[in-house]
Amino acid sequence: MAERTLSRALFADFYELTMAQAYWQHDRRGTATFSLFFRSYSPDRAYAVFAGLESALAYVEELRFTSDDVDYLRSLDMFDADFLSFLSGLRFTGDIRAMTEGDLAFADEPVIEVTGPIIEAQIVETAVMNAISTETLLATKASRVVHAAAGRAVVDFAARRTHGEEAADKLARVSYLAGCAGTSNVLAAARHGIPPVGTMAHSFISSFPAEIDAFRAYADSFPDATTLLVDTYDTLAGTRHAIEVAKELRAKGHALRALRLDSGDLLALSVECRRLLDEAGLQEVELFATGGLDEFEIDALVRSGAPIDGFGVGTKLGVSADAPWMDWAYKLVEHAGAPVLKLSPGKETLAGPKQVYRVGAAEYEHDVIALADEPPFEDARPLLREVMRGGKRVEAAPSLASLRERFAAEFARLPERHKALRAPERYTVEHSLELDALQWRLTQWVAQHELGGSAS
Amino acid sequence: MAERTLSRALFADFYELTMAQAYWQHDRRGTATFSLFFRSYSPDRAYAVFAGLESALAYVEELRFTSDDVDYLRSLDMFDADFLSFLSGLRFTGDIRAMTEGDLAFADEPVIEVTGPIIEAQIVETAVMNAISTETLLATKASRVVHAAAGRAVVDFAARRTHGEEAADKLARVSYLAGCAGTSNVLAAARHGIPPVGTMAHSFISSFPAEIDAFRAYADSFPDATTLLVDTYDTLAGTRHAIEVAKELRAKGHALRALRLDSGDLLALSVECRRLLDEAGLQEVELFATGGLDEFEIDALVRSGAPIDGFGVGTKLGVSADAPWMDWAYKLVEHAGAPVLKLSPGKETLAGPKQVYRVGAAEYEHDVIALADEPPFEDARPLLREVMRGGKRVEAAPSLASLRERFAAEFARLPERHKALRAPERYTVEHSLELDALQWRLTQWVAQHELGGSAS
Repeated sequence: MAERTLSRALFADFYELTMAQAYWQHDRRGTATFSLFFRSYSPDRAYAVFAGLESALAYVEELRFTSDDVDYLRSLDMFDADFLSFLSGLRFTGDIRAMTEGDLAFADEPVIEVTGPIIEAQIVETAVMNAISTETLLATKASRVVHAAAGRAVVDFAARRTHGEEAADKLARVSYLAGCAGTSNVLAAARHGIPPVGTMAHSFISSFPAEIDAFRAYADSFPDATTLLVDTYDTLAGTRHAIEVAKELRAKGHALRALRLDSGDLLALSVECRRLLDEAGLQEVELFATGGLDEFEIDALVRSGAPIDGFGVGTKLGVSADAPWMDWAYKLVEHAGAPVLKLSPGKETLAGPKQVYRVGAAEYEHDVIALADEPPFEDARPLLREVMRGGKRVEAAPSLASLRERFAAEFARLPERHKALRAPERYTVEHSLELDALQWRLTQWVAQHELGGSAS
Repeated sequence: MAERTLSRALFADFYELTMAQAYWQHDRRGTATFSLFFRSYSPDRAYAVFAGLESALAYVEELRFTSDDVDYLRSLDMFDADFLSFLSGLRFTGDIRAMTEGDLAFADEPVIEVTGPIIEAQIVETAVMNAISTETLLATKASRVVHAAAGRAVVDFAARRTHGEEAADKLARVSYLAGCAGTSNVLAAARHGIPPVGTMAHSFISSFPAEIDAFRAYADSFPDATTLLVDTYDTLAGTRHAIEVAKELRAKGHALRALRLDSGDLLALSVECRRLLDEAGLQEVELFATGGLDEFEIDALVRSGAPIDGFGVGTKLGVSADAPWMDWAYKLVEHAGAPVLKLSPGKETLAGPKQVYRVGAAEYEHDVIALADEPPFEDARPLLREVMRGGKRVEAAPSLASLRERFAAEFARLPERHKALRAPERYTVEHSLELDALQWRLTQWVAQHELGGSAS
């Protein structure tokens, strides 16, 4: 049997396709705008780092159903033959406005708005949400870890722990964007131009007759790029072995780079290891800490003055352990020229295509959510830019290096009180008068008419 | 510039490759066995559902570095030219023993053991761990949700919320294995032969002038497969509209399948909706509930007698929200014929290749972790089976349907007290006398010799 070629076009919730048929069969072809935003903050968060735009745009631009995709749908005996022909020819022909990757985003602010024939703008929902929710989640977590490290290097060590290889790739990219110094994930490093970073595993040590033999072998292979893992048997004994090897390296004109501490009391051990290294005249050898770290532990170590120069962060970064999801919504806000709102309890949405303005120069002061067609606000920066027109990207993707630099500058402008690791203060997001007036008019309208109407 | 062909062989932590070079340059070519196990239970869990084997075996079997992979590594200026030639020809030539997907696994039990030349068995670490940690995590969560539903249907609705499309694919597969009835993810449904399931979005309703128009359009398109979402404006008013449409369908010889409740007090609303449906003589119309559900909420609804026939579960299933990671370790347990152990505080490992025996017929009674080369235990079932020999799978992958059936039978054999959603009782896992004797001998040996020795 020949292998089927199923495409990512099928990466959609089933209802995207059934709704598409119902739209198609009932001549619902009007232009729609969908707005993607998060409704509430995850614990201990008062901002999010927007990411995932490149992945979302790639999906949208490449969207086309293969004949095997269509054959599969036909096999379900639910779809109309004419609709399936239509689906075969479907491309995304609409426009997309979005924040820039690395922008700080706040609750209720649209980070992306998709405008196009309703079938097209609806059908990309699942993939667009997945890309942006995943990458924003991970970028936000990474920004917290980097912030906690207060200038010390943070490296992504999560490749074995993320929810899949794709998540590992996305994490490596967005954590570098958010300030990490490198990644252990070689494939992601190669793909995105990120420095690959690594040390050694306990198994390497255990495979040699004695710890120092393992240290010597590794130092011999990488005389200028060796970080020795010292806790396989006993951290301080391991440190003494490492000091011996560091001296041997120095005698040959090389230098040991660092020791890695991976267990035990990292504060006490780092102080003692630093003392042993300094006594041996090995001031240049750095200390690198790993082992179940997150922003809270790193913050505690940094505040305690632990002499640690860098952190390798795995699991808790890789799955955003304290907050593994965000509450995103992709909502229809305009259809066939009329604003649309949803009133489900606790899930009310703001009608109409929007713009987000950021006020404040050296420091962010507040944001304003406005209608997209309001006159631009003075002294405020609009955050949503056109990134796709007629199904084509309007410009090449910015380089990861440039996004990283831009993020660092932007993040510095958000006042510290909104970046606290615990119970940060909310950042003010206002509504424009016109936006609020529209919501009020629509709510009144729904109250006065049969439930389930729109303002058209 | 021609596109590079980077392969999944590079999906490895950087240290796998640097250690490989150090092994290679120092003639460490002995056969090694690595054991993968989880060290501790996540909150409220006393078992895990082993999954990810197929993904891991596919990676191992296909492992080969492309010339672009090797060119990238060469560009880093850290690798020896002869080592890179060696890497170009590297294949996994070893053996793998593993549990069967869907087996219940307990802390410290090896779920997979990889035996081969140390470079080969080490280099697959990252990918094998990622596959098994991701899929076991998600399968375990799914088993809890299905168990809570106590026979009512559970459907995977998490495609937009998982950490990437790959995670969505894996979730759909393993949640079906663990008893889910279907998935909303069309691509995963097509790939794995899972029933695709969907309802409709609020945006579909909002795009029509009135709710009932949307209901009629959808019912017209899918007269025998319609689930109506009734909470866009007001759940009870929506239910009345749905009842109208259900009667129209019936008059045409069709039947409305279900109503979907997505917000508000699901217990109260389901009781009221059921009453309205029954009063209208629509006993056959089911109630399907969604909206931030997890095993705890489903359990509460089921215990309260909510007349809900099925649940769509998204975010909290898709990221295993209450426990988004597990504490896995891939440890060297034997090298060059000698058992190996690691003593890092809190991370001690059991030396030697192992077998896991399950005791108990109708009900699981306890497990025993033994050395692989002990004589088989009577009246106990060995769980690790050879799945790869000399780099090749020993048999075709079992079908997902057969794994699903097998899981249901096995899960039923684990006593309820170990499956409680909160504070379940630990299942007993014993060590064989020979296993404990070996650990004791090795610990004594390390204590008597210079720290950092092995028993060879």
